[in-house]
Amino acid sequence: MEKENIKTLLDKFKAIATNSPDDLKRYGSDETEDLNFPPDLVLKPSTTKEVAEIMRYCNEHNIPVTPSGARTGLSGGALPVQGGVALSTEKMNRIISIDENNAQVTTQPGVITQVLQESVKEKGLFYPPDPASKGSCFIGGNIAENSGGPKAVKYGVTADYVLNLEVVLPSGEIIWTGANVLKNATGYNLTQLIVGSEGTLGIVTQIVLRLIPHPSHDMLMLVPFFAAKDACEAVAAIMKTGVTPSGLEFMERDAIVWTLEKHPNIQMEIRESHAAHLLIEVDGFDETKLMEDCEIIANELSNFKTGEILFADNQAQKDKLWEIRRKVGEAVKSHSIYKEEDTVVPRFALPNLLLGVKNIGQKYGFQSVCYGHAGDGNLHVNIIKGTLTDQQWNNELPKAIREIFKLTVDLGGTISGEHGIGWVQKEYMDIPFSSTSLHLMKQIKSIFDPKNILNPEKII
Amino acid sequence: MEKENIKTLLDKFKAIATNSPDDLKRYGSDETEDLNFPPDLVLKPSTTKEVAEIMRYCNEHNIPVTPSGARTGLSGGALPVQGGVALSTEKMNRIISIDENNAQVTTQPGVITQVLQESVKEKGLFYPPDPASKGSCFIGGNIAENSGGPKAVKYGVTADYVLNLEVVLPSGEIIWTGANVLKNATGYNLTQLIVGSEGTLGIVTQIVLRLIPHPSHDMLMLVPFFAAKDACEAVAAIMKTGVTPSGLEFMERDAIVWTLEKHPNIQMEIRESHAAHLLIEVDGFDETKLMEDCEIIANELSNFKTGEILFADNQAQKDKLWEIRRKVGEAVKSHSIYKEEDTVVPRFALPNLLLGVKNIGQKYGFQSVCYGHAGDGNLHVNIIKGTLTDQQWNNELPKAIREIFKLTVDLGGTISGEHGIGWVQKEYMDIPFSSTSLHLMKQIKSIFDPKNILNPEKII
Repeated sequence: MEKENIKTLLDKFKAIATNSPDDLKRYGSDETEDLNFPPDLVLKPSTTKEVAEIMRYCNEHNIPVTPSGARTGLSGGALPVQGGVALSTEKMNRIISIDENNAQVTTQPGVITQVLQESVKEKGLFYPPDPASKGSCFIGGNIAENSGGPKAVKYGVTADYVLNLEVVLPSGEIIWTGANVLKNATGYNLTQLIVGSEGTLGIVTQIVLRLIPHPSHDMLMLVPFFAAKDACEAVAAIMKTGVTPSGLEFMERDAIVWTLEKHPNIQMEIRESHAAHLLIEVDGFDETKLMEDCEIIANELSNFKTGEILFADNQAQKDKLWEIRRKVGEAVKSHSIYKEEDTVVPRFALPNLLLGVKNIGQKYGFQSVCYGHAGDGNLHVNIIKGTLTDQQWNNELPKAIREIFKLTVDLGGTISGEHGIGWVQKEYMDIPFSSTSLHLMKQIKSIFDPKNILNPEKII
Repeated sequence: MEKENIKTLLDKFKAIATNSPDDLKRYGSDETEDLNFPPDLVLKPSTTKEVAEIMRYCNEHNIPVTPSGARTGLSGGALPVQGGVALSTEKMNRIISIDENNAQVTTQPGVITQVLQESVKEKGLFYPPDPASKGSCFIGGNIAENSGGPKAVKYGVTADYVLNLEVVLPSGEIIWTGANVLKNATGYNLTQLIVGSEGTLGIVTQIVLRLIPHPSHDMLMLVPFFAAKDACEAVAAIMKTGVTPSGLEFMERDAIVWTLEKHPNIQMEIRESHAAHLLIEVDGFDETKLMEDCEIIANELSNFKTGEILFADNQAQKDKLWEIRRKVGEAVKSHSIYKEEDTVVPRFALPNLLLGVKNIGQKYGFQSVCYGHAGDGNLHVNIIKGTLTDQQWNNELPKAIREIFKLTVDLGGTISGEHGIGWVQKEYMDIPFSSTSLHLMKQIKSIFDPKNILNPEKII
C-alpha cells in the first residue's frame, strides 16, 4: 500500500484509526497457527455509514480491506495478507433490539456471541450456536465463518438462524439481503450467500437472527471408551435411537490429558486405558423426559466397551466438563506447533475417517490428536509437529493433508465443517470442488468485489 | 423458436420428445391462475447425462429451456413463456438411496413429495416439508420454489433439509454444490443459491436431503374465532407459550365454506358467527407431553373469544380436517377468477397485515379470502374478481397488490414466503429489494446462464 494513501486514510478517518506498531502486529494475527500479516492501518468504525465511507474510499483507491472481528478464527480468514486496512468491527458492539414477540434479535456484528446468548436468555430465548470461543468471538465472525459448536448436532449452525443481513458492499453501497421472516421464497438467497463467505463479498453491519424458546433443563454425561473407534461407532448408534443429544462431543485421550496438564486447577481423573471420551448432553423442557433420554443413551452404550459413565450431578460439574472441552483447542495449540484440519463427514463414516487419519499419520510419521463435534461428523484433526523436521513439516505435510482431505471427500464429506477455508485451506479447494464450481465462486466474488479489494486471496 | 431447430431437436431426442398439441397445451400451464404458454417441444430425460446433452444443445443454439416438474406451482415458475423446450423431470422419478445410518435420502427430482415422505417414514425417518400439493408436486419443484407447508412452523422449509445438489448448468456442465454433511463452511453456499432459484440457474438432477426421526404421535384441534383479527393475535400468543406447534394454520370463514361447497362429501359444521379458524397440531414422541402441550395452548386460547374447540379424536377426523385445509387453495381457485399473493411477515405483525389487506380491499372494491401458515407469518391473500370489471381487474388491481406488498415489506416481511416469484410477481421485486440487490441477482443469473436460455424472464 502506498505511503501516501495511508496518510490520506489516517487524516480522513483520524478519530477511528490506529497504526501503532503494537496494534498493527496485533491485528495481523488471528488464532490460526502463528501467522502474522500486519495491516498498514486499523480502522474502527462504529456505524454502517462509516463502514460505507471507508469502503468507498478504499475501493476507489484500490486499497485492500480485511474485515476483522475478535480474530479468534482458525482458518486465517481475518489475516490482512496484502496489508492495507484492517477494518475492525469491535466498536459495532451493540445489540440493537430483542423482539420477544417474534423471537428475533437484531444486532451489530461486534457483539460477543456469549453476551448475545445471555442477553436473549434473560427473555427466555435461545440462540444455540456456540463455538468453543463463544466467550470472546464476535457474532459477525460467526456469520463470516458459519460457525457451529457443540449444539449444532441438535440445533444446527449459524446459517440456520440468520434471517436478514445489512451488508456494505466493496463499492460502499448498502443492502439488506432478505427480510425478517422465517420463510422466504423471494429471489436468490443473498443472505445464505453472505453467511460463510468469510468477509470476501461484503461487510456485515447488522444481523437479524431468529431465536427459539430456551430449554429449561439439561443433563450431561462423560463416557470413557477403551478404543477411539468404538467411541466413533457409538456416535452413530446413539443418533439412531431417536434421541437427539444437544451435544455429542468426541475427545481423544491426549486432548484431555494436555488440557489437564495446562490447567492443573481442573481436577479430573483419566485412566491410562481410556483411549477416548464422548461428552453427551441432552436438553429440553421436561426433566423426566431427559432422564428417559439418558437411559436410552446409556442403554445403547451398554453395547460398547466403555468405562464407568460419569453423570454430572450439579452445575459446577457440568461447567467443569464443558470447560475441559472448550479448552482443548487452546491446550493442543500451546503444546506443540500444529496444524488443525476441520474435517466433516456423514457421521456414520466417522470411524473410517479416524482410522484413515491415523493410517496417513503412520505413513508420514506424524502424531495427531483428534476431537470435535462427532454428532454431526465434524472431526478436528490436530497434526502435531513433534519430531518432524522443518523439511517434513513444510514439504511433506501438505501431501498428507491432501490425503486426509481426499479421504474426507471420498467419504461424502468436505474439508471444513465450521472453521472456513480462509487463508490456510484454500490450496485444497480443488478436492471438494470441480473447476466448474470454483469458477462459479470466482465469478460470484467478482460480481460483489470487481476490484478484488475485500479480503483478497481468501477461499479461492 | 425456429422451426428448423424444433425439427433437429425432435430428431436428436426422438425417444424422449413429444410435441402433440395436447401435450404442448398441458405443459404450457401450471397452477398459476389460468395462464398458458405452450412450449414448442416437451423433452422427458431420465438421466443426468440426457439433461446435460439437452442443455448443451439448447445453449449452443439459443433455445429457451423451461424446467417442468409436476406443474403445481403458484407463481408461474414452470411456464415456458418464450416457448422452446419444456424439460420435464417426470421420468427422473427414482429414490436413489435411503441412508438410514446417516438419516439422509438421495433422490431424483421427479419423485412426488408424499411418496418420498412415505418411503422414508417406513424407516422411521421424517422429511417434514409438506406443501398443500404434496400428493402431486415433485421434490424437485419444492427445491426450485423453496416450498414450505404447514409443518414449517416447527420444522422449517425445504431449504433447511437440502444438503447437496447435483445440478446441470445451462452449459451442460454438471456440478455438485456441496457435500453430504450437516455442517459445511467450505466456500460460497452454492447449494442455497440453487434452492429457491426457480430453475433459472441450473437443472437439479439429484438431491441429498437430511432427515430426522419421525415423531410417533400428533394431536390436532380446530379453534373457531368470532373475529379473524383475534385468531391472528392468538397465533403470536400461542408461540410465546414456549410450545411450538407442528401446524398453526389460519383460515378465514369463506375459505372453509367454499371448500365444503365444492366437496359436499366432507361433513363439517361451520357456524355463521365463526369468522375464522385456527387449525393447530402438536407432534412428538410422548403422548402425555402432547396432552400437556394441548392444555397449555387451550389455556392460552381461553384469553380469546373462541367458539368450542374441536379436538380430533381419531385419525379419520384428523385426516378430514387436514383435507379441508389442503383443498382450500383449489376451492378458492375454482370459485372465481382470483389472484393469490403469498405474503409473509414476522408473525406478531399478522393482525396488522390482515387488517391492512381488508382496508386496501375496501379502497379498491375487492373481496379477499385469506388463509395460510399463520405460525410463520405466511398469509395467502386471495383476491377475488367477483364483480370487478375487466378494466378494474387489469388496470387497478396491480396498484392494490403493490399496496399490499408495500405494507408487507413495511411490516418487516416480504412478497413471497413459499410460492416463489416466478412469472407473476416479478414486477413487484422492486418493493422488497433495492436496485443494487436486484442488480446483484441479475449478475448472478448471468454467471450461471450467460445466454439467458434457462427459464428466461423469471424472478428478475
